[in-house]
Amino acid sequence: MDVKALGHKGLALCDMTKLGLAVPPGFILTVECAKAIAAGQATATIKAEIIAGLGRLTEETGCALGDYKHLLLLAVRPSMPIALPGTLEAVLNLVLNDETVEGLSKYSGDPAFAHACYRRFIQNYAHVVMGDDPAAFEDLLSLFVEERGYVSAAEIKGSDGYELTARFKSQLEAHDQQVFPQDVHEQLWSTIVALVRGWNGPRAKTHRKIHGVDSDAGLAIIVQAMVFGNQPENSGTGHAASRHPQTGDVIMQGEYLVDAQGPDLVARMRQSLPLSNGGGASLQSTIPEAYAALHSGLKKLEALKRDAVDVDFTVSQGQIWFLDAKPARRTTAAAIKIVADMVRQGLMTEAEALLRIDPLSLDQLLHSTLAPGARRDVIAAGLPASPGAASGMIIFDADEARVLVGQGQHVILVRPETSPEDIKGVHVADGVLTTRGGMTSHAAVIARGMGKPCVAGASSLKIDANDGTLKAPGFTLKKGDVITIDGSSGQVLKGEVAVVKPSLSGDFAMFLGWADKARRMKVRTNAETPHDARIARDFGAEGIGLSRTEHMFFEGDRIIAMREMILADSERDRRAALAKILPVLRADFEALFAIMAGLPVCIRLLDPPLHEFLPSVTDDVVGIAKDLKIDPAALRRRVAELREQNPMLGHRGVRLLLSYPEITDMQARAIFEAAANVAKSSGKAPIAEIMVPLVSARGELEAVRKRIDMVAGDVRKETGQAITYLVGTMIELPRAALKAQDIAKDAEFFSFGTNDLTQTTYGISRDDSARFIGEYTARGIFQRDPFISLDVEGVGELISFAVERGRLGRPDLHLGICGEHGGDPDSIAFCEASGLDYVSCSPFRVPIARLAAAQATLKNIIKPIR
Amino acid sequence: MDVKALGHKGLALCDMTKLGLAVPPGFILTVECAKAIAAGQATATIKAEIIAGLGRLTEETGCALGDYKHLLLLAVRPSMPIALPGTLEAVLNLVLNDETVEGLSKYSGDPAFAHACYRRFIQNYAHVVMGDDPAAFEDLLSLFVEERGYVSAAEIKGSDGYELTARFKSQLEAHDQQVFPQDVHEQLWSTIVALVRGWNGPRAKTHRKIHGVDSDAGLAIIVQAMVFGNQPENSGTGHAASRHPQTGDVIMQGEYLVDAQGPDLVARMRQSLPLSNGGGASLQSTIPEAYAALHSGLKKLEALKRDAVDVDFTVSQGQIWFLDAKPARRTTAAAIKIVADMVRQGLMTEAEALLRIDPLSLDQLLHSTLAPGARRDVIAAGLPASPGAASGMIIFDADEARVLVGQGQHVILVRPETSPEDIKGVHVADGVLTTRGGMTSHAAVIARGMGKPCVAGASSLKIDANDGTLKAPGFTLKKGDVITIDGSSGQVLKGEVAVVKPSLSGDFAMFLGWADKARRMKVRTNAETPHDARIARDFGAEGIGLSRTEHMFFEGDRIIAMREMILADSERDRRAALAKILPVLRADFEALFAIMAGLPVCIRLLDPPLHEFLPSVTDDVVGIAKDLKIDPAALRRRVAELREQNPMLGHRGVRLLLSYPEITDMQARAIFEAAANVAKSSGKAPIAEIMVPLVSARGELEAVRKRIDMVAGDVRKETGQAITYLVGTMIELPRAALKAQDIAKDAEFFSFGTNDLTQTTYGISRDDSARFIGEYTARGIFQRDPFISLDVEGVGELISFAVERGRLGRPDLHLGICGEHGGDPDSIAFCEASGLDYVSCSPFRVPIARLAAAQATLKNIIKPIR
Repeated sequence: MDVKALGHKGLALCDMTKLGLAVPPGFILTVECAKAIAAGQATATIKAEIIAGLGRLTEETGCALGDYKHLLLLAVRPSMPIALPGTLEAVLNLVLNDETVEGLSKYSGDPAFAHACYRRFIQNYAHVVMGDDPAAFEDLLSLFVEERGYVSAAEIKGSDGYELTARFKSQLEAHDQQVFPQDVHEQLWSTIVALVRGWNGPRAKTHRKIHGVDSDAGLAIIVQAMVFGNQPENSGTGHAASRHPQTGDVIMQGEYLVDAQGPDLVARMRQSLPLSNGGGASLQSTIPEAYAALHSGLKKLEALKRDAVDVDFTVSQGQIWFLDAKPARRTTAAAIKIVADMVRQGLMTEAEALLRIDPLSLDQLLHSTLAPGARRDVIAAGLPASPGAASGMIIFDADEARVLVGQGQHVILVRPETSPEDIKGVHVADGVLTTRGGMTSHAAVIARGMGKPCVAGASSLKIDANDGTLKAPGFTLKKGDVITIDGSSGQVLKGEVAVVKPSLSGDFAMFLGWADKARRMKVRTNAETPHDARIARDFGAEGIGLSRTEHMFFEGDRIIAMREMILADSERDRRAALAKILPVLRADFEALFAIMAGLPVCIRLLDPPLHEFLPSVTDDVVGIAKDLKIDPAALRRRVAELREQNPMLGHRGVRLLLSYPEITDMQARAIFEAAANVAKSSGKAPIAEIMVPLVSARGELEAVRKRIDMVAGDVRKETGQAITYLVGTMIELPRAALKAQDIAKDAEFFSFGTNDLTQTTYGISRDDSARFIGEYTARGIFQRDPFISLDVEGVGELISFAVERGRLGRPDLHLGICGEHGGDPDSIAFCEASGLDYVSCSPFRVPIARLAAAQATLKNIIKPIR
Repeated sequence: MDVKALGHKGLALCDMTKLGLAVPPGFILTVECAKAIAAGQATATIKAEIIAGLGRLTEETGCALGDYKHLLLLAVRPSMPIALPGTLEAVLNLVLNDETVEGLSKYSGDPAFAHACYRRFIQNYAHVVMGDDPAAFEDLLSLFVEERGYVSAAEIKGSDGYELTARFKSQLEAHDQQVFPQDVHEQLWSTIVALVRGWNGPRAKTHRKIHGVDSDAGLAIIVQAMVFGNQPENSGTGHAASRHPQTGDVIMQGEYLVDAQGPDLVARMRQSLPLSNGGGASLQSTIPEAYAALHSGLKKLEALKRDAVDVDFTVSQGQIWFLDAKPARRTTAAAIKIVADMVRQGLMTEAEALLRIDPLSLDQLLHSTLAPGARRDVIAAGLPASPGAASGMIIFDADEARVLVGQGQHVILVRPETSPEDIKGVHVADGVLTTRGGMTSHAAVIARGMGKPCVAGASSLKIDANDGTLKAPGFTLKKGDVITIDGSSGQVLKGEVAVVKPSLSGDFAMFLGWADKARRMKVRTNAETPHDARIARDFGAEGIGLSRTEHMFFEGDRIIAMREMILADSERDRRAALAKILPVLRADFEALFAIMAGLPVCIRLLDPPLHEFLPSVTDDVVGIAKDLKIDPAALRRRVAELREQNPMLGHRGVRLLLSYPEITDMQARAIFEAAANVAKSSGKAPIAEIMVPLVSARGELEAVRKRIDMVAGDVRKETGQAITYLVGTMIELPRAALKAQDIAKDAEFFSFGTNDLTQTTYGISRDDSARFIGEYTARGIFQRDPFISLDVEGVGELISFAVERGRLGRPDLHLGICGEHGGDPDSIAFCEASGLDYVSCSPFRVPIARLAAAQATLKNIIKPIR
């Protein structure tokens, strides 16, 4: 029997029993059995089996249901496919009634204990079986404590609580208009049926969906003899981890609460003890045998599971009972330490170790995080758009941000949404906060690319740039006030919160080395600045998969020349303006080629529509016109002329390169001259890949390619240097994927631009998707946000077409992905299965992609045909 | 041998020879032969064949090349795959030289004639063989006539022209730096090689591409004995059509020019004679035998070709010679009369008749046209966006247009581009002119839908709404000035131009009846107003394929209620606002159901994003806020809030229906209540098809469908009426096509929204495409504008997927197309081959679609599996 039949907890109990650990006796109704109950089938048989099970329990324990003297009390616990806390509750202290509570009272010699058990059962039963609100019972308890003038419920002694028990029963009976059942078998059966019903209810199904569990997954039910930690003598409850959850060190960690049952530990009403405390009060000092049994139990479990484990246990009058075991919670640092230790100890292979770590969890090791203990005053929540934490002054303007950072200030750039104009501000800011936009909005993409923390779409916040305030219902912050953003959780916090810097340990480096050995696909980075390229190299990038040239056109004086170009009336004037940009662009490329020495550098030619380089209608047209020495009216006219209804689908990419071949020429020349210079100075020709964006038909690529080849010929002649380059295209439109065989005739490589491909395949603008995509995923209309995890069924099919057809057109076609998905582990798995040659992602995703690619290779059963 | 081997003219000559018509003797160098010449292959063999051909010519004519006494003169003519006037020129009067011109002079007794022939040859040769500009020779002639004090060249008599001949030769020799060849074989060979070279040159290739001829199609060359119409006695040249080109009546039509060669007729330097003139001067009266031979020749040709024919002829000293024959030019009315007559006469079948008429040509019969003889003062050219001609005052504002039309004025609405706000203006205007936007821009689509003439994207015009002017380089028009637009040609004309109203003849109705019998697919219409629905019914529409509800929300006070809904803060307030729209919408649907009695009516639920219903930032926010009784600031805020980067890919369609289920409910209720009312009053339940737009995943449709079914149940209960309806979706996103099998589980029908599917497949916004798509088609990067003719390779493949997968999901899935392509004959052919059940198009396209669908069925060799 496995987890599918027994559920998570059921399997743990069987495992522990097998290892000889003390587990309270009991039996499990399997998933199959619970399904039959749900369907109302074989009821008589199941009931008979339960009776038989109870008979065996009586044999083992010497106690029986309803036996006044030797009372068998039960715990009925759901056993789910994975631990899903909060989904279904256990019912404890079953089956007590007005009669047996007296027996328990008498034979335990503690009426207060017996009645507390009975009340807990009534409350439990009311909640789980009748669906009542537990708060009503908590209120009764509070009222009672108040009436008596007690400080806490612990003061209820002897028969003092009898009346409270009566009130609990009345509450249940009044609310549910029925008598609280006294028949013990009826109590048990109702509880079992209630758990089955609860599991098949809409709330639990939603819960499963949220946790990514198959919503049709089954439930098993555990019926177990109760063991009582809530006794004053040598009793209590606790949990223990086999290794340190923060560091992964081989030190047993946990806590122990005297005189308590499991839920009391969760409620934290009293101070717990450590397991061991160098002589101070601890489990070890108070009940050394239980501590020893716990320690050896964890060792055995680790050996069986070959993993660090957490256990829940109860000590009942000195005897330890193991109640549950699961994989230990751990930080990523601890997780890596644990697998590294286990590999060193020969307990697992490198491959197993690689498969044990969630690639996304590596992010914890790459960014600043909020200090674990720091006080958090959360004032708003947005999307966790780019990980990392940062504090700084609220600043609404990119230029102002630059000035302040120049003065040594820390700044959070706060904008409704960012535009390419803001990039200089993002560059200097410690973090970015936007009130609009989704996970793939401009701000999010740029911030991730730069490794800056970003919280996007914090829609409860309203920016009033006029009076320099940031408002939300209940408070108003001013420009200059300090906030902290946590791009890993999406939280916005008031004031400065302490931040912890990342540190890459030796084990981490070793671990990534194993990943590099294991993976088939290369991992490149999306980077356009030397700064980013260097970070990515340090993180192990094997080249640049996407260098977006447009960002290069915004820096410094280039934007002025770019605007001159756009406003020019003739090709000659445009060429003159472009000639001013050429040398700076060439220098940028030289830097990238130098950093990526010998590795491929894929440069995408200018992609955005020209109006993105002009001010918007509401911007400072007069000031910019003055800079350009032109009439503001002329500038306004050109802005209006270039305005587009749907810029995403407009005059951009290859369409622009064909309309203004001089732009193509200038960029090609900058690339080739840079390549020639670096070849000359380093003695080694860089590998330049030139990517033409937004191609939908071969003719487009063919025409641009001709110009590129022409320029390459010119530069070869002029410099006498050999220039190695490839020309390829981004596959980012459905038609390009469909016509890939044709297009591949003119493309030496394809790079899947899955952001735009997702936009066009779904007909969803990622900038505008925030209004509905959250609701879509919440309602399960979309399983996942397709901008975060590649839509394998739709967009993925187009990619498969493009791969297959592209290779028909050109068998040695080189294939990669450069969309945001290139850093998403599930999407990387799809890339592996599709037979891509590389993935490319933002610098801070490179280590994640290295691991994800390794896992994909290890798990991949669909072997690409190559 | 067929047209592929002989070319168009060559085949005509062979046909006429076979029919016993007098054709000047000669021979044809076949396409294969010309290809060999182009490749420089088999030159000796070909030259020998030419010598042999000339030998046979000498036998037939008794004349020989260079024979002083019996001079054989040749015409060398290109014979192209179809008649492509202006592509390559014939060379006449070959082969004359300084010696033979004297012989011709002496033996013809007319030195002036002989030298005129020589000069024409020199000029011809210079142009065709040497590539010189003929204007230089025309200038020499003019100068000579001036020097001599003549009125025209006809006064050059006797040896008077010798000097001019010498000047012609000098001009050629000076310009080309070579002696004019005197060797007759060299002259002939050079001419042949020049024609072959010209055909393979870039200019001719472009010409072929423009005319839709395969650019690799071959050329044949005709070498024929000259016959001279340019002699004073019983000689001349002319052309004749076997039926009247305007009406199609069986009356020979044409003209005849005395003492002339073919080009003179084209040049129209003198008045020509009619062929027959009831006793007045005509070919019949002057050379009755030639007239009779012409008449009988045309009869024979018609019988052979089973079509009306045009012939070119020359009369040389009383003897008629047939030089060429081609299908007669004709208006659409004439074309239909001709095939109707031929079917009546048993000369062709109905199917053949249907295949003879270009569906698009029917448009001539459905719209007003500029009067043929009217003076045209063209001031600008745009895209022929919606056919028909109209005159009216220039008006820049929709409201102003309504006022003026109310006063009985005729108005042309002139806008940079139109928005849904302008619809009321388009409704009343006689035509629409925009300076931006393409064939599928908002203005174009709306105008076509309403059957109003529209010229779109006349980009040379600049609107200055402030000072109320319409400017272009060279002129300024003011508001109120009258212009005329021709939506069939895209011309904008100054002033009022006479217009001819359409008239549908009996033959036209009969002809469309044949089409209806022949076609497999149904033809529906896209219509939302009763007016349009009625036009479409009259044109033979078999239901409504697309009724866009959004247009219904703009009329009258509905827009106010719609805005209230958008500005409401709660679902309750939104429902209250929608309740005001419900009754008017229901009345609209009742009208449509009544008009389409018993035919299906497919209604698309609200599609555009909400901001389209609000004023734009620059509009009269204050006035509108006053209408709505709200704070202008609140309106401005909501406008800003709803603004989208890419509305086409934004929060619209099903996304909106899911966010605001109350909108879905209200529309469904209006439809069902209307259906119930019409069912009650007419005793027959209408067939309502409810179409959910912009679906990309089954979950979307599933959720909306549930609400629709719920409302249907409610209305059934409330009214006690049976309601027949289908729920389906538009396939307009690539993902919907890919996931069609899944989606079909919740869709009873698919309608292909090929406008949006083309936009997303190509990633091109049709509103923004005007900037580059013209250049793309001109350069051949795109073969055709994919918004006009369906892109069969890309978009078409997605449609094929959707058809195949959709029917896997639901075998009885009903399939149609409702994009603009539904009215395009080539696209209709694709729909037939894809096995769609119907096409739907704008009312004025319905007759075109009926014919195109019939042709598609007749031509379809790919049988759909049904």
